Amino acid sequence: MKYSDLAMGLKASEIRELLKLTTMPEVISFAGGLPAPELFPLEELTKVDVEILAKEGQQAVQYGTTEGYLPLREKIAGRMKKAFQVDCNPDEIVVTSGSQQGLSLLAQIFLNKDDVVLVESPTYLGAINAFKLCDPKFVEVPTDDKGIIPEALEKILAEYGDRVRLMYVIPEFQNPTGITWPVERRRAFMDIINHYDFPVIEDDPYGELRYDGDVVPSLKSMDEKGNIIFLGSFSKIFMPGLRVAWMVANPEVIDKIVKLKQAVDLQSSSFAQRQASFFIDMFDLDGHVEKIKDLYGKRRTLMCDSMKKFFPEGITFTYPEGGLFTWVTLPEYMDAKEIMPKVLEKNVAYVPGGPFYPNGGNANHFRLNYSNMPEERIVEGIKRLGDVLTQEIAK
Amino acid sequence: MKYSDLAMGLKASEIRELLKLTTMPEVISFAGGLPAPELFPLEELTKVDVEILAKEGQQAVQYGTTEGYLPLREKIAGRMKKAFQVDCNPDEIVVTSGSQQGLSLLAQIFLNKDDVVLVESPTYLGAINAFKLCDPKFVEVPTDDKGIIPEALEKILAEYGDRVRLMYVIPEFQNPTGITWPVERRRAFMDIINHYDFPVIEDDPYGELRYDGDVVPSLKSMDEKGNIIFLGSFSKIFMPGLRVAWMVANPEVIDKIVKLKQAVDLQSSSFAQRQASFFIDMFDLDGHVEKIKDLYGKRRTLMCDSMKKFFPEGITFTYPEGGLFTWVTLPEYMDAKEIMPKVLEKNVAYVPGGPFYPNGGNANHFRLNYSNMPEERIVEGIKRLGDVLTQEIAK
Repeated sequence: MKYSDLAMGLKASEIRELLKLTTMPEVISFAGGLPAPELFPLEELTKVDVEILAKEGQQAVQYGTTEGYLPLREKIAGRMKKAFQVDCNPDEIVVTSGSQQGLSLLAQIFLNKDDVVLVESPTYLGAINAFKLCDPKFVEVPTDDKGIIPEALEKILAEYGDRVRLMYVIPEFQNPTGITWPVERRRAFMDIINHYDFPVIEDDPYGELRYDGDVVPSLKSMDEKGNIIFLGSFSKIFMPGLRVAWMVANPEVIDKIVKLKQAVDLQSSSFAQRQASFFIDMFDLDGHVEKIKDLYGKRRTLMCDSMKKFFPEGITFTYPEGGLFTWVTLPEYMDAKEIMPKVLEKNVAYVPGGPFYPNGGNANHFRLNYSNMPEERIVEGIKRLGDVLTQEIAK
Repeated sequence: MKYSDLAMGLKASEIRELLKLTTMPEVISFAGGLPAPELFPLEELTKVDVEILAKEGQQAVQYGTTEGYLPLREKIAGRMKKAFQVDCNPDEIVVTSGSQQGLSLLAQIFLNKDDVVLVESPTYLGAINAFKLCDPKFVEVPTDDKGIIPEALEKILAEYGDRVRLMYVIPEFQNPTGITWPVERRRAFMDIINHYDFPVIEDDPYGELRYDGDVVPSLKSMDEKGNIIFLGSFSKIFMPGLRVAWMVANPEVIDKIVKLKQAVDLQSSSFAQRQASFFIDMFDLDGHVEKIKDLYGKRRTLMCDSMKKFFPEGITFTYPEGGLFTWVTLPEYMDAKEIMPKVLEKNVAYVPGGPFYPNGGNANHFRLNYSNMPEERIVEGIKRLGDVLTQEIAK
C-alpha cells in the first residue's frame, strides 16, 4: 500500500506514548494533563443521565445538528459572558469533540502547506500535532515570564508579512509553562493584532481554574475585528472523557467549520452534549469549579513548595496562578529527555520539554502536572525527582 | 482573513441542509437516513448508564486511549466473526466517532491531491464529502443491479494503474441504491483486487439489517492480502447519537489511523464507548437487531408496494434486501432536483440523486429512506409523491 504525504509524516504524540508507560499504579505520574478523578461528580451524572433519557430520550441518542445542541450553545454563550467577558450568541458557537478537534479543524480551514503559523515558544504539543497535518512553517514567537514579547512579535510580522495565516496562543495558565499574560501585555498584543487580518486562536481550557490573583480579560473580549477565535472546554471543569468543547468565532469562520465538521465526523455526541447541558441545569457547575480550584490550588502550592525543598540549586520553575502545569528549567547543558529513564526507574514521570518547541532545541526543560496526583504522592514524587536531579547536576 | 484551499472548496452537504428543512413535524421525510426513534432501547440505556457510573465511573469520564475501550474492541472482534465472518483481534480494531470519521481519517492517510479514488457510481454522499477534503480525482466504476461490474473495473484499473490509491465500496444494501452484491460478484471483485496493492474500504453500516435472502460473505472475509478495510457502526443497530463506530484493518493501517486520530480529536468518548459495551453485556443486542429488522422489513415492503401502486409507469425503483434505502429512477429527461420544490410543497421530502455521483450528471434519480417514518405516513407520503410524479411525467 502507498500512503499519503500526510501519513508518512505522522508521529505518535510523545505525551500519549508516555501516558501508556505511566498507567501502572506504582508510577507517580506528573506527565499527563488529567483532571483529578476523585472530583468527578458521578452521583450527579447518574441523575443527569436518568433525566436526559426520561425527558429527551429519543433526541438524545438520535442524529443531531453539526453545530451542536442549541440549549448547550445557549448556556455556553452565558458562560462566555460571565467567565470570559465575551458577548456572543449561539450562532457564533460550534460544539467540538474536545478542543483538539477545534485545533485540527481550524488548521485545515486556514493553513496550506508552507503557510506560516505563529506560536508561543514553547507551546502546546497537541496544537503542534494538529497543525503539522497541514505541513505549515512554524515560527516561534519569543516569550518571557509575561507571555509573548510584543516587540518580538512585531519583528516577526514585519519579516513574514502576508505569509502569516494563523497564530495560536494560550494567554491563561499556559500549557506547558503555566504562565499568564498580564492585562498590559494583552493590550499590547491586541494593539498589534488589530492592525492585521490573520486569525488568532485563543485556547483557554483552564481559564476558570485560577487559584490566586485577579481575573484578566480574555483576548476575545478585546477583539475589535473578529480575528480572535476562542476555544473553551468542559474537559477540565467537568469531565474530559465526554469530549465536549466549544469554539467561538465570527459567523464566517463558524460556517466553514460546520461544513468541514460535517465531512469529518458529522456531529459531536448528542448524548454527551446533553450531559453537559443538563448538568448545568440541574446542579451547580460554578460550585463544582470552586471545589476543583480548592484542590488544584493546594496541589500547585504543595508541588512548588516541594520543588523548593527538594530540587538542587540551578533549577528554576514557574509558579502558576492557575491551570494544571508548572514548567521546570534545568541548566542549559542538561537534557530532560536523557534524564527521563533514570526518573522512570524511580517510578516517577514527567514530559520532557523539547517537543513543545516545534522547531526543536530547548532540551533543558520538563513539564509537571499537579492536578492528577494526591498530596502525599506529589511530595514523594518531587522528592525522588529531586534526588535524581541532584545526582545529575553534580556530574 | 484568508482561508486555505480546502476551506475555499467546502460545500455544505446537501443532505444535511435538506434535513434542516424537513424537521418540521408536518413533513413526511424520506430524505435522511435516520433510524426509527421508537425502537431506541431507552429504558435499557438508563440501566446501562447507572451501571457504568457505579462500576467504572471515574474511568468512564476520564481521558482514555486513542485506540478505544478495550472491552468494546473485544466485543467488536466477536461481532466481526459472528456477523461478518471475519477473524480479527482487538489490535486490528480502532473505535471511531461514527464511520464518517473513519472515512475522513482513511482519506487523509491514503490520498494526496489528484490521486485517483475509485467509487461505485453512484456512491454515498458522506464518503464523497470526506474524500473531497483531499482533492482527489474521483473515478466512478459503472454498476448494475448486482453492484460493481468486474469488467468495467478491470478496464479502469488498466487505464489508471498506479494512480489508483484507494477504492470505496458498499457491497451490502448500498447507500443510495439499496443494491447488494451477490457472492459471485464479490468473488470476481476480490479476484481482481487481490492482484493489486491499493486499499479498499468496505463500508457496512447496515449489514446486519437483512430482511430477505441469504447472508453473503463480506469482502473482508475473502481478503487474502490485508487490503480490505472494514467499517462497521453502532449507529443503525443501536443509536447514532452516541457516535460509536469501528474500523478493522491491518496493523500498519491501524497504527497510522491511531496517530492521525490523536492529532484530530485524541479519542472518542470514553462514556459512549462504555454505553455500547455495557449494553452488549447487560442486554440482548442481537434480539434488539431482530426488532429493527422486523420493523424496517415491513416498512421496506410497504414503501415498495406503495410505489408500485401510486407511481406512474416509466419510473423504476430498487427492492432492497436490507438496509434503509431504495433508489428511484425517473425517465432520463426528468430532473429530481427540479421536481423537489413541488414535492416539498406537498410536505414530502427525498434526496435528489445527482450529488451521489461525484462527477455530476444523472439528475434523474432520487433516494428514499423507509426506516424513519411510521407506516401510515409512508403510504401517504408515497401517494403524494406519486401525484407529483404523475403530473410531471405527463408534461
